[in-house]
Amino acid sequence: MNEFDIIREVFAPLTASAPGAFNLSDDAALIESQNFVVTKDLMVAGVHFLPKDPLDLVARKLIRVNLSDLAAKGAKPVGYFLGCVWPQNVKREDIELFARGLAEDQQKYRISLYGGDTTAHRAKAGPLTLSATFFGTPPKQGVVSRSGASLGDDLYVSGTIGDAGLGLAAIRKEFKFTTVDKASLTGRYRLPEPRLVLGGALAGLATAAIDVSDGLIADAGHLARASGLRAEIDAVAAPRSPGAAAWVAAQDNRWKALAKLASFGDDYEILFAAPPALRRSVTVAAKASRTEVSRIGSLTRGEGVLFLDEAGAPIPVPEAGYDHFKKER
Amino acid sequence: MNEFDIIREVFAPLTASAPGAFNLSDDAALIESQNFVVTKDLMVAGVHFLPKDPLDLVARKLIRVNLSDLAAKGAKPVGYFLGCVWPQNVKREDIELFARGLAEDQQKYRISLYGGDTTAHRAKAGPLTLSATFFGTPPKQGVVSRSGASLGDDLYVSGTIGDAGLGLAAIRKEFKFTTVDKASLTGRYRLPEPRLVLGGALAGLATAAIDVSDGLIADAGHLARASGLRAEIDAVAAPRSPGAAAWVAAQDNRWKALAKLASFGDDYEILFAAPPALRRSVTVAAKASRTEVSRIGSLTRGEGVLFLDEAGAPIPVPEAGYDHFKKER
Repeated sequence: MNEFDIIREVFAPLTASAPGAFNLSDDAALIESQNFVVTKDLMVAGVHFLPKDPLDLVARKLIRVNLSDLAAKGAKPVGYFLGCVWPQNVKREDIELFARGLAEDQQKYRISLYGGDTTAHRAKAGPLTLSATFFGTPPKQGVVSRSGASLGDDLYVSGTIGDAGLGLAAIRKEFKFTTVDKASLTGRYRLPEPRLVLGGALAGLATAAIDVSDGLIADAGHLARASGLRAEIDAVAAPRSPGAAAWVAAQDNRWKALAKLASFGDDYEILFAAPPALRRSVTVAAKASRTEVSRIGSLTRGEGVLFLDEAGAPIPVPEAGYDHFKKER
Repeated sequence: MNEFDIIREVFAPLTASAPGAFNLSDDAALIESQNFVVTKDLMVAGVHFLPKDPLDLVARKLIRVNLSDLAAKGAKPVGYFLGCVWPQNVKREDIELFARGLAEDQQKYRISLYGGDTTAHRAKAGPLTLSATFFGTPPKQGVVSRSGASLGDDLYVSGTIGDAGLGLAAIRKEFKFTTVDKASLTGRYRLPEPRLVLGGALAGLATAAIDVSDGLIADAGHLARASGLRAEIDAVAAPRSPGAAAWVAAQDNRWKALAKLASFGDDYEILFAAPPALRRSVTVAAKASRTEVSRIGSLTRGEGVLFLDEAGAPIPVPEAGYDHFKKER
């Protein structure tokens, strides 16, 4: 059973009377009559964060993964609803530390908690489970959907790719990074940086956008599919941090390593499409929002994703992002 | 550590810049600039429903406990966001059965799913955990808050009290009910009836309202506290179903039994306050919405809740509703 099939086949039909739900094929919904952009992301200990991660960072990650969805839509965040299922033996200090993390990022992003529900598992029955529903106002140019890309559009991504996955590998001591790289990579895993300013600047420029949470290749597939096109990605052009470059250099098979970086997920960058005629405007928007943006490919006729080597030949891609019903990580 | 202290002391400060969050002292928040009423309730297997309950009924209970919050505010439901954390070994048929329950109640209440997040626990790591964020439009008279009751207002409750708790006792074979009573009581536990029509009719009449989820006495305490008053409840006047009446008759201590009924929780009735001058209007609203409503007490000077016997003497109340951080049930 596949997570995306379940959403498309089992849950999407339940949105038939709500055009603003985009048939569950987008990161966020638009409550049209009132013009709110809303998104909801869950985080479960042992799945989306490490059970021993400091709870203030967990809280801030919860906020940021949700803000990343709003960023990809060009929305300006306003507030959120929070649901917590705590282990029964949780201590008050734990919850306070968690709330301090919320407070810190609330101030940083000028958002507020609006409500929610607090409950606890039965003794030893389950891990900390967090749910947040965020809402924001859409950009005046309208939200950037997943499905608006046109044939021939360029494909761009912000920041660097694969760092969070390598950060997790560093925490698990699966690879020896330099101290500086390790700090930077684990930071990317524990505390993503939602690209809100860039997202706002792309409204009216980008024809389609998605936040990279399942992995660059998987999310390019989501965007391409929603737009009825194929995504072609230049493996070398997909941007890498110094730590990721060092890791790639140490791998036996460079192409396999690049494909792995593009499959890790948890990047929380914005992947977007824009017409070639707007290349200059995209550069200006990136500069104005002080965010690195790389042109990594284009949208062509066909379906799926081609991850291409220097000669333009497709690199085999072993796994298409994380599927919660399929495997453990 | 107490759940309500945590909400008031740890989380409420995070809503300081959002007046519509009512300092987390209400069932639902008002997103004022856009006029939406939003509520969020979690349900965890083993805590809020039995792990073996049929999943279509679990889905419908999730919808209904949230709609009950909107009903108490007089709001008209529009849609919801859904978060599911499934056990890793969940079968597709299970999820489909769950979705069928959602579809059934979506049609019944004319609401739509708008978005959400689907994920899974690691193998054997936790129970099915559900989160829903519901939104609706406020009544034109404005939402009915928890805090608007005045000194001398009457206190009313819809339907009957304690049935869901007895339904759980029946499922656990802790008491032998007649076949008819058992079916009715277990139905109240598994499938609450949100009082949406009554809630709408009370807008403009009720000065304060809350849905009874923690238990009549506990929720009367929440309403009284928010209004700066004391709730006095006539134990005999608190309405009982035939099954509950049979159970009370079989108990050694009648007053203790009545206090227990008023502490069980999961009733999903509306407890509300209204001025004595509006008694007739309340009766008309109840009739028009075909919902039984009982006058059970009043709001007086002081604090807390007095649960009174026929002579007007307070009955000791052993437990003040369910606290997720305190005990198991």
